[in-house]
Amino acid sequence: MSGNQADLGVLGMGTMGASLALNFADNGGFTVALGNRTTEKTYGVRDDNPELAERLVPTDSIEHFVSTLKSPRVVVLMVNAGKPVDDQMALVLPHLAPGDILIDAGNADFNDTVRREKAVKPTGVHFVGMGVSGGEVGARNGPSIMVGGDQAVWQRLKPLLEPIAAKFDGSPCVDWLGPDGAGHFVKTIHNGIEYADMQMIAEVYGILRDAVGLRPQEMADIFADWNTRDLQSYLIEISSLVLAERDPETGGALVDQIVDEAGQKGTGRWSVIEAQKLGVGATTLEAAVSARGISSRRAERAEAARIFGGVKTARAEFHADHEGLAELEAALVAAKIIAYAQGYATLTEASKEFGWNLPLGEIARIWRAGCIIRSRFLDDITRAYEAGDVVNLLLAPSFTSRIEGAQEALRRVVAKASLAGIPVPALSAALAYFDDYRRARGTTNLTQGQRDLFGAHTFHRLNREGTFHHKWPQA
Amino acid sequence: MSGNQADLGVLGMGTMGASLALNFADNGGFTVALGNRTTEKTYGVRDDNPELAERLVPTDSIEHFVSTLKSPRVVVLMVNAGKPVDDQMALVLPHLAPGDILIDAGNADFNDTVRREKAVKPTGVHFVGMGVSGGEVGARNGPSIMVGGDQAVWQRLKPLLEPIAAKFDGSPCVDWLGPDGAGHFVKTIHNGIEYADMQMIAEVYGILRDAVGLRPQEMADIFADWNTRDLQSYLIEISSLVLAERDPETGGALVDQIVDEAGQKGTGRWSVIEAQKLGVGATTLEAAVSARGISSRRAERAEAARIFGGVKTARAEFHADHEGLAELEAALVAAKIIAYAQGYATLTEASKEFGWNLPLGEIARIWRAGCIIRSRFLDDITRAYEAGDVVNLLLAPSFTSRIEGAQEALRRVVAKASLAGIPVPALSAALAYFDDYRRARGTTNLTQGQRDLFGAHTFHRLNREGTFHHKWPQA
Repeated sequence: MSGNQADLGVLGMGTMGASLALNFADNGGFTVALGNRTTEKTYGVRDDNPELAERLVPTDSIEHFVSTLKSPRVVVLMVNAGKPVDDQMALVLPHLAPGDILIDAGNADFNDTVRREKAVKPTGVHFVGMGVSGGEVGARNGPSIMVGGDQAVWQRLKPLLEPIAAKFDGSPCVDWLGPDGAGHFVKTIHNGIEYADMQMIAEVYGILRDAVGLRPQEMADIFADWNTRDLQSYLIEISSLVLAERDPETGGALVDQIVDEAGQKGTGRWSVIEAQKLGVGATTLEAAVSARGISSRRAERAEAARIFGGVKTARAEFHADHEGLAELEAALVAAKIIAYAQGYATLTEASKEFGWNLPLGEIARIWRAGCIIRSRFLDDITRAYEAGDVVNLLLAPSFTSRIEGAQEALRRVVAKASLAGIPVPALSAALAYFDDYRRARGTTNLTQGQRDLFGAHTFHRLNREGTFHHKWPQA
Repeated sequence: MSGNQADLGVLGMGTMGASLALNFADNGGFTVALGNRTTEKTYGVRDDNPELAERLVPTDSIEHFVSTLKSPRVVVLMVNAGKPVDDQMALVLPHLAPGDILIDAGNADFNDTVRREKAVKPTGVHFVGMGVSGGEVGARNGPSIMVGGDQAVWQRLKPLLEPIAAKFDGSPCVDWLGPDGAGHFVKTIHNGIEYADMQMIAEVYGILRDAVGLRPQEMADIFADWNTRDLQSYLIEISSLVLAERDPETGGALVDQIVDEAGQKGTGRWSVIEAQKLGVGATTLEAAVSARGISSRRAERAEAARIFGGVKTARAEFHADHEGLAELEAALVAAKIIAYAQGYATLTEASKEFGWNLPLGEIARIWRAGCIIRSRFLDDITRAYEAGDVVNLLLAPSFTSRIEGAQEALRRVVAKASLAGIPVPALSAALAYFDDYRRARGTTNLTQGQRDLFGAHTFHRLNREGTFHHKWPQA
């Protein structure tokens, strides 16, 4: 194929980049240039997909890659976060011209995106930070796409992205969310919520496995059943699939052969750090990220288990009868509402802090399909925002009533797990947040008294305006 | 007073700076130059302290300030963190010479300290990041001092700092802890632990106030009693003082007039962010910082209280009888051990990550007096580190036995508070951490299965080495 015929180019032929390129060719019908640090991969992607071969243009070099693109050019970068992005940008930017669009479609710390957009601006090239969720399968067949950057550029990208995005009731799960780092910020919080959702599911799995003593297939059936009601979601569905899977090597359940160590770097960590910087208590996200950190200290855990003994399952008052399962299901619903409320509170605060005017209902709308946290529940959030101003999801009428009905179950589950020694860090963080949030008179009046005593930090009074310092007796 | 006679100078005559200057003059017997952005303050500090006047040198300008100092000069900067530090450094540095020492004694993000030390190095001036804890009273009479920077410089600072530091059994609570940002990092984690300690006390206060229904004076008596045993500490002591204090305006308890809103910016937040970056689950610190954030949303809390109703005190099974109080006391002991273990885990990880070789036992030693978290308990930590290698405080024999004895109480308290609707975010985070940490087989095997299913993230197997990817059925 000769030059200037590709509608866009994808740079980075890893799992996500190749999948996205195939999606552009397949569902978009676009001609797509394939670029990669090592050339052979670009030919491999074409050769492995003969049915799309005529719309895939493998290239040998950055010059070749750029020369195949129609002008003004659109380049989609899909490489690992951090230095690889800066490296690839340095390679490709000298070959681009004013009016071209350079998209970072990988996960990125939104602070980097803000920095990169500023750095690229003088060249006249439009830099776009874009979050893509849905894993390998989503990228190939239809991801949820969160676009940041210049709104005028979005009008040019829309016809390229709508055909490849996931559809919910026919509506494409892609939109422009705000300037500079807004797209990557929203993707970061999406992933933080994903961490929380996965951790809460893992905690219930822990209860069913260790307190009730169920086998993986039994748990798979329970998750499949839950997937037919309020909890219906991709993550609940794949929990069932993972639990049901047999190990080809041992013939037993595969989940029982997998090492219980998970990493916590990247987006999950960023979500917690940004929530902290914004002063939002995203405690379920934090509990989830921390739980992965603890899980990675496997040798220490084994030593601690030896010293302290195991879970006190004999005392566990969990049961897998109808009532017991309904209680766990309701607890998960309540905790999920609270976790999403924390994620949305972080988005709300970021929107104010950075002047982004984030379309919060629209964010729920484009998360309804394609992405990892897709669920029926997100449709409810969409509607809550359509119904009017939402200060916090917990205060939106449709969620208020749901949490009213489910909170008792969450209380009982946290209490029983605490007594039995089964860790429920995210479920208990959710409950504590709810109880703290709905308490008109908190306890930091004592804290403020202490701070004024030792540091003259001053305090406010209930009965009149002003800032006060008291001459406390000293210890 | 004419030039070149001051042993050192303190720049910044706020509460902390003035207190530190008086301490140098009083307990150190040093002649101290006083510098400040607004001149009148330097004279005010001298005039308000006639008994020290001959050793206090008020100055009018930065030139005057520097000219009064013996060479090589020692300048102690004590201004608000962030830009004020950079501003004052820019003012004073042109007047310093190679071999002079410039100390930032305020709280600082250790990343800023690392940056500043690098920036100052070419001038030949020694920059020292130094954490000072103890509030106003500590700074005046004897704080705990955490020194970072060049170890050779410490030898010059030692005779200046030992006389002004707090003493524990006659031993000064000051030491060099490591290069560049080590001093400020340790101070940051100190403050994170302080947040956790204060939050856990506030949670128990909430239980006594809302579930048991005690009056402030009754609670003051309880804290005073607890201060005679395992919990003996400055923070427990001042909790009693704050609760006992009468409001001169209303005649009632002052604590009941203080608004329950506390800020969470600065060191507490930094401690959580750094723990996250290091992959350490400092969940009690995080819960404490987040709880302050939630407390500051007072209008939202009032609205949530209206919608969801208050605490279900009728169901609370807390009692202020001997057994009930012993249970709360033991729960606080258990949670405190866990919170300190998290703080120390963060120090341990930072020490590895930054190559600081932090003297962990020594850190506990210099926290035993002068600082806000000073307590009998820190002497136990000192001894645990003296006794040998400590992977995690929870695994040190002296703490293992204490937590064994106290964990049941923590379980019951978290369970009862969860059922009653009284928020215990830090206590429950502590319990969940303990239970997660002492579990040999966790639940992230499910998480890893999910991640491999949707993102081809691979997993490890229990039965053999290697990294595996499975062809999972797709949802």
